Amino acid sequence: MSRAAVVLLSGGLDSATTAAIARSEGFDVSALSIDYGQRHRQELAAAERVARQLGIADHRTVRVDLTALGGSALTADIAVPKGRTDEAMSQGIPITYVPARNTVFLALALGLAEVVGAADLFVGVNAVDYSGYPDCRPEFIAAFEHLAALATKAGVEGTLRFRVHAPLIKLTKAEIIRRGLELGVDYSLTHSCYDPDTSGRPCGRCDSCQLRLRGFAEAGARDPLEYQA
Amino acid sequence: MSRAAVVLLSGGLDSATTAAIARSEGFDVSALSIDYGQRHRQELAAAERVARQLGIADHRTVRVDLTALGGSALTADIAVPKGRTDEAMSQGIPITYVPARNTVFLALALGLAEVVGAADLFVGVNAVDYSGYPDCRPEFIAAFEHLAALATKAGVEGTLRFRVHAPLIKLTKAEIIRRGLELGVDYSLTHSCYDPDTSGRPCGRCDSCQLRLRGFAEAGARDPLEYQA
Repeated sequence: MSRAAVVLLSGGLDSATTAAIARSEGFDVSALSIDYGQRHRQELAAAERVARQLGIADHRTVRVDLTALGGSALTADIAVPKGRTDEAMSQGIPITYVPARNTVFLALALGLAEVVGAADLFVGVNAVDYSGYPDCRPEFIAAFEHLAALATKAGVEGTLRFRVHAPLIKLTKAEIIRRGLELGVDYSLTHSCYDPDTSGRPCGRCDSCQLRLRGFAEAGARDPLEYQA
Repeated sequence: MSRAAVVLLSGGLDSATTAAIARSEGFDVSALSIDYGQRHRQELAAAERVARQLGIADHRTVRVDLTALGGSALTADIAVPKGRTDEAMSQGIPITYVPARNTVFLALALGLAEVVGAADLFVGVNAVDYSGYPDCRPEFIAAFEHLAALATKAGVEGTLRFRVHAPLIKLTKAEIIRRGLELGVDYSLTHSCYDPDTSGRPCGRCDSCQLRLRGFAEAGARDPLEYQA
């Protein structure tokens, strides 16, 4: 019998690769997407496509209205930065940071894990090309794993010993892409851009697009997405 | 200048008392209610009334669709237990447990705290009459406080040193009610029942009603709510 796992699936390159890794390790995957009022709703459609390609039958979307909190370019009416230099991207935490986002997402994944009886949670956070997000670091993941054991009925009763897997956390974007290509991830189904046009085409200039394009270049592969002119 | 705090306000007796305590300590309170698809939606109306009575101008409600996860009598189509004995109530974790609920709620409170610049979070959890919920214990609160420092931009940059206050955690229901009455909480505005009728009147027989009624009796006070016949 295969073990159950919950994978946070945003529809981006990182989470698609993470889901493929969980599948390759033999887990029976429940995928969880979060509709948090993000501007780039094409992500949610991408998550659906990726789950289908990976043969994940249990894919759920939970709505969380983070726009009621505000405070980020991804959920409030604040402009997404474009064409930033490497130096600018590596300094500080950008305006696209969503307060406590990964804490909220992992909390929801933990709830689903308890419901479906999964001890293993997978999240595609990355501390290398992580754009300065605090909740993408190993210390954060360890602290959440500690919390999970105390926060749940299954943890307290000892029926599930929760583990939070962050298999990409120390990989460069190029290494992530190489691993995903080995596992057969179809990156044409994924979505990374913070500011796509109405037909869903990525801008090529926001931090996320820049990191993605450079990752493909360094991996010696071609990004299958069609970018805006 | 007063310090900012975020208080999780469900509209129940405990959270109303917690909000009054935060106010009495001089905090400038932002109240956060969570619409998580709970059956007893009268809670949200109660939260609105309580915030108004306490003079809290910033009251926000965030929707989180926990029904997509299921697994609880409060969010799925499972019957709420009624008329349970003391022995039954004190054994194990009941079906009204919502998987990872307080982890999700505190994560959202943390997000709001970061946005409004509040270092202090208040939550009305209680480990005495807590009906066996794992995420109402001091160890859980301590683990969340540890996580908060690592999870946020403000925590990592050191601009906010997050503290999670659970002022009711070691109080009996009678002690909570006495404290609230001292602080002028109007308990006629609060809502505790897991299974009210359509006009909002509490059932008097679910675990929550039983604990509330006993608390008022032990405090030597009268519960101002009108119960079903």
